[in-house]
This record gives sequence, structure tokens and C-alpha cells, in this order.
Amino acid sequence: MTGIEPPFLAACRRKPVPFTPIWIMRQAGRYLPEYRKVREKVDFLTLTKTPELAAEVTIQPIRRFGLDAAILFSDIMTPVEGMGVDLGFDPGPVIGNPIRTLEDVERLRVPDPRETVPFVFEAIGILREELPDSAPLIGFAGAPWTLFCYLVEGGASKTFIGAKSFLFAEPDAARILLNKLADLMSAYLRAQAEAGAQALMVFDSWAGLLSPYEFRSFALPAVRRTLAGLRGLELPLIYFPNQGSTLLEDATLASADVLGIDWRLPLSRARAVVGPEVAVQGNLDPAALFAPREALGTQIRSVLREAGPGPGHIFNLGHGIERATDPDAVAFLVDCVHEWTEGETGALDPEKP
Amino acid sequence: MTGIEPPFLAACRRKPVPFTPIWIMRQAGRYLPEYRKVREKVDFLTLTKTPELAAEVTIQPIRRFGLDAAILFSDIMTPVEGMGVDLGFDPGPVIGNPIRTLEDVERLRVPDPRETVPFVFEAIGILREELPDSAPLIGFAGAPWTLFCYLVEGGASKTFIGAKSFLFAEPDAARILLNKLADLMSAYLRAQAEAGAQALMVFDSWAGLLSPYEFRSFALPAVRRTLAGLRGLELPLIYFPNQGSTLLEDATLASADVLGIDWRLPLSRARAVVGPEVAVQGNLDPAALFAPREALGTQIRSVLREAGPGPGHIFNLGHGIERATDPDAVAFLVDCVHEWTEGETGALDPEKP
Repeated sequence: MTGIEPPFLAACRRKPVPFTPIWIMRQAGRYLPEYRKVREKVDFLTLTKTPELAAEVTIQPIRRFGLDAAILFSDIMTPVEGMGVDLGFDPGPVIGNPIRTLEDVERLRVPDPRETVPFVFEAIGILREELPDSAPLIGFAGAPWTLFCYLVEGGASKTFIGAKSFLFAEPDAARILLNKLADLMSAYLRAQAEAGAQALMVFDSWAGLLSPYEFRSFALPAVRRTLAGLRGLELPLIYFPNQGSTLLEDATLASADVLGIDWRLPLSRARAVVGPEVAVQGNLDPAALFAPREALGTQIRSVLREAGPGPGHIFNLGHGIERATDPDAVAFLVDCVHEWTEGETGALDPEKP
Repeated sequence: MTGIEPPFLAACRRKPVPFTPIWIMRQAGRYLPEYRKVREKVDFLTLTKTPELAAEVTIQPIRRFGLDAAILFSDIMTPVEGMGVDLGFDPGPVIGNPIRTLEDVERLRVPDPRETVPFVFEAIGILREELPDSAPLIGFAGAPWTLFCYLVEGGASKTFIGAKSFLFAEPDAARILLNKLADLMSAYLRAQAEAGAQALMVFDSWAGLLSPYEFRSFALPAVRRTLAGLRGLELPLIYFPNQGSTLLEDATLASADVLGIDWRLPLSRARAVVGPEVAVQGNLDPAALFAPREALGTQIRSVLREAGPGPGHIFNLGHGIERATDPDAVAFLVDCVHEWTEGETGALDPEKP
């Protein structure tokens, strides 16, 4: 580590930065030809379980774009398999033995992730050797509610009505399952930090399926428990309640340093809700990367303007990048954000084009 | 028509009602055994195109539950076929010739729906004969943006990235398509009113995919154009921007009498945004119908409490009913809403259980 704090970590702490840092959700992925080349040789599961390859695809977008953070290539379901879950991918997660009763919940183990998924921590070790200091490594986990969705529904779904109705029909069993997932994710994230991760992010991809009441009753206590288990770790915690525009006030109670904001809520409105003590990450619509350069530039400028002059903004998309995206549009995005915010505060310079 | 205005129509106009009226999105559908019996004999498309059968399944939930409004059984894609769209269902809409260029857009016709879908207006005629006065008939159409999603994407999708990227990549062609759809839906809704529909609803199922900027630039002008084409009709207009929590302020500019609210936003917050001049419709989470009766009762009471004592609340779910729902839970819901709100204002009586 050099003496100067990388801009991404500084922004997470709401400190001044020399420019607005940027990284991109799912930045290691199919839109990159170099990623597709690796995937020609191995399937997705093998890739996540082979430390050298996982590290390689994690680094690819850093090399190509000069992004300000790297995020471990893995899947949110990876640590769940060791609970006794029959997990496959097709291409989304498919659970052979979905949870339907209290007995199913009680049967699940809370293993030590250092024993069940050692390859994750090996990949982190390799990455800390190979990544430049300018690109800190983000470790991550799925939020308990989002993992719950897959475990109960048995696979991907538009409405996850099976998972949601389980909350209502079996609230006690649901809470036990959420707590088990919280404890496992806490241990998993802690082990990632011990292996060298420099920030930790919790993805709550399905938070937006819940009403504020349901979020407050079920999902939020489980996130709080996950993050409470990380107390004492000296690194930024990021929580992303996807599609959570109506949940943000509650989401601040998760006590994360940074909240991820999807593209539906302008950052000025998000800032007004979450307050000055929380940094925000987001929130360009991934579809904007399909626009001609001028229109894309307008959208980028709009995100920076909405973020405002205050510290504590990490630029990102409002959701994972789409596989049909042109990598050159990403290069343009990264350059715009860096150039237009270069200066004393790291906010949009109104003099720049 | 009797001299007394049915509670549903009165509530749309924010007049006092003897109890809070209730109907349920997708109330005619697969969760009802009597609907499944009809579907054993005919496929979905045949059902929508056979006036006697469409009328029969429309009436089924009125007979069973004593709901306060009926909604025509049909599909939002029905009037689109006449534009020159190669439409199938599998089971969601599948478009054989998706729109990809300005030329594709220009090739689409704006037909007279009275010629292309006469069966819709015949079904309305039958229904006005057969429905009780207590259950006014709602006609409906898809919002231009939501129809656009299917026409451009070519079928159902989680992200509709194809449709959204077309907005950004070809904004002029996108606007021409949205305008054509607005003009057709306007004519279609007007013809439904002329055939006897007593209220008109516009479903914007995919509004929630858009940021406020995108909504304001594309979806909203098209809804405004649709509703502006209905000026002079003396019946309530309902607009449902699904998942539109961050769009409501803009959605009021559509000038609908009623806005549908999904379950993510408590009605008190929705009311604060849309103001006293607009009625609200919603917003019980469809998953709550899977809860034991006591927990379901708590959720129903919570929706009524959030709606507040003011006039202008139509009870509904926050989204279409799920096919695995127990019809007895629906009967319980309807009875609770009616019993707990019976009185001078039609709002929740705090003395009732």
C-alpha cells in the first residue's frame, strides 16, 4: 500500500478525492471479448472455483479501462452450497431441494466458509498481488433476503411469489432462515476481509420486491445482523438495496458506509433521504451505454450533476452492465467521469464540456 | 342505470361512499376454478376473441365475490395486431417481426379498432346487459410505453434492454412509434366507452423500468396524448404506472382521475405526492393473500389506514393476483374491506376489529 488513499476508498469515507472514482457492476463479464475467450474453455462454475482464472477475469476490466475498483469475480450463491443446498446453474441458480418447511430450514448447516469455499480466498490473495494500488479489491456477498429468494423459490422468478408467500405464511421459519444466512454471510465477508478484500459489498438484488413494511420486518434485520457481525473491521461497507427507492430511509439503518442507488431515483433525491453521513454509489441507467456518444455524455453529466458537489459519490451504473454493451462505450464513460471531475473536490467541473 | 352512483365510480371522483369499493387486478383468471373450466375448452386467444366467453369470465369474480367493479377480460396486445404486428402468445406475447428501425415503425398502420377488434365491443355490450348496477365495467388498454416494450423487444423480458436501448439509440423513431400507439389506444379506449365501458384504465406495466428523466421524455408524453384523445368523455380515467414510486410526481401530469399505486409505496406517501385532486387505487401486496387470516387482516387494515380518512380510495392489490391464490382468501379480503369501512365516509372505522 502506498501512502495515498485510493480515490475509491476515500470516496467511501466521504473524503475529498482528486476525481470521482468509477467502477461498474458486473464489470468482469460477457460484454468483454477477453472474458468470452476465457469462458470458451471453462464453464461458469469452474471459473468461479479456479482461483487463477477468477483472478484473471477480475483484472481484465481494470487493465482495459483503468477503473478505480476491482470486484472479485464470483457468484452470490457460491457460499450457500456448503449449507447443504443442491445448487446448479441454468444459467441462473437452480435449487434441487428448495426450502418449504421449518424442518427444511433447520436441516441447513452454517459452515465455516474457509473450509467450504477456500478458492474464494485464494483468488483474493492472488488479486492483492496483481492488482494496482489504484484499484482496491471489493469482496461481496448476497444479502440474506436475496439468497432466501432463490433458496425458497427454487430458482429465478419474476415475482418470487413463492419466497414472498413463505414470509407471510411461515414468518418464524422465514426469520430463522434469514438469520442463518446472515450469520453465514457475515463469516464469509469477514474471511474475505482477512484474505485481503479492501471493501465489502452486500447485494440485495430482490429488495425491491418488498414493501417498506416487509423490508423492515424481514430483510433489514437480516442485513443489520450481517453487517453487525463485521464490527471491528476497518474497511468500508456497501449495501445495495436494488430497486429500493421506497426503502432507502430504512436502508440507512443497515449502517453501511455507502448505499448503492439504482437508476430510478435521481441521486439528489437519494442524498436528501440518506443524509450527509452516507456515501452513494450509482446510478447511470445501463441502457444509456447504447446511446450515441453525445446523448451518453448528457446522461453521464446528469448523474454527476445530481450527485452534487459534496464528497461521497462513487460513480457506477444503476444495475449490472448488459452483455450486449460495446466496450468502447464503457471506455468513453470512464474517461468522461475522470476528466469532467478532475480537480480539488472530485465533483463535476461546470467549465468542462 | 339507477339513480344512486355505484361506489366505485363515486370513489374515482373523490366523492363520499358508503364503503370503500374494491376490485382486483386480474380478478378474472386462473386462480378461479370456474375460469379454469372455461379454459379447458378454449385457448387464451380464442377466449379473448369470443364475446360470450370473454363476458362470462369477466362476470365470474363478480358473481363469486360481490366485487365493486368488473374489468373486461382481454389482453393489452389485442388491439396491436391490427397494426401489422405478427402476434402470438407463449404464454406471454411473442412478436414475430419486432420493430428495429424507423422503416419498421413507419410500416405500422393505425387501424380503426372498431373494424379490427369488433369482438371487444360486442363483449362490452353483453356485459352491460348482464352485470349488476353495483359493478360498473372498466375498459382498458396498455400504455404506449408498455406496448412499445413488447413490440421492440419482441417478447417478455426481465430488463427490456432492447426496448430501452432503442429509446436512447433512436429517439426520433421511438417517439413516432409511441405516438402511433397513443393514437391507436385513444381510439380503442374511446370505442370501448362508446360500447358501454363506464371507466377506462391504462396499464403501464413497464413504467418502472424507466428513470424519471426517461419517463418524462418518452412514456409520459405518450400517456398524455392517449388521455388527451379522450377529452369530452364523461367517465373516470385511471392510469397505473406500475413500480412507479419515483415517477408519481410526473405521473400526475397525465391528468388521470385515479392513479394506481403498487405495493411498494404506502398510500399515505402516494397521497402526499399526488395531492388531493387525484384518487388512488391499491395497494395490498398480492403475496399477503398467502398469509393466515389474522396476518392478512393486519395487512388489509394497514392499507386502509394508510389510505386515510379522505375520499378517493379504491381498494385493490398492488399488482395482479397470483394464480396460486386461494379464492377463499379473496372472499375474506372483500368482506373485510366492506365491513371495516361501512359508514358515512367509507374509510376505515377504528372501532371495527
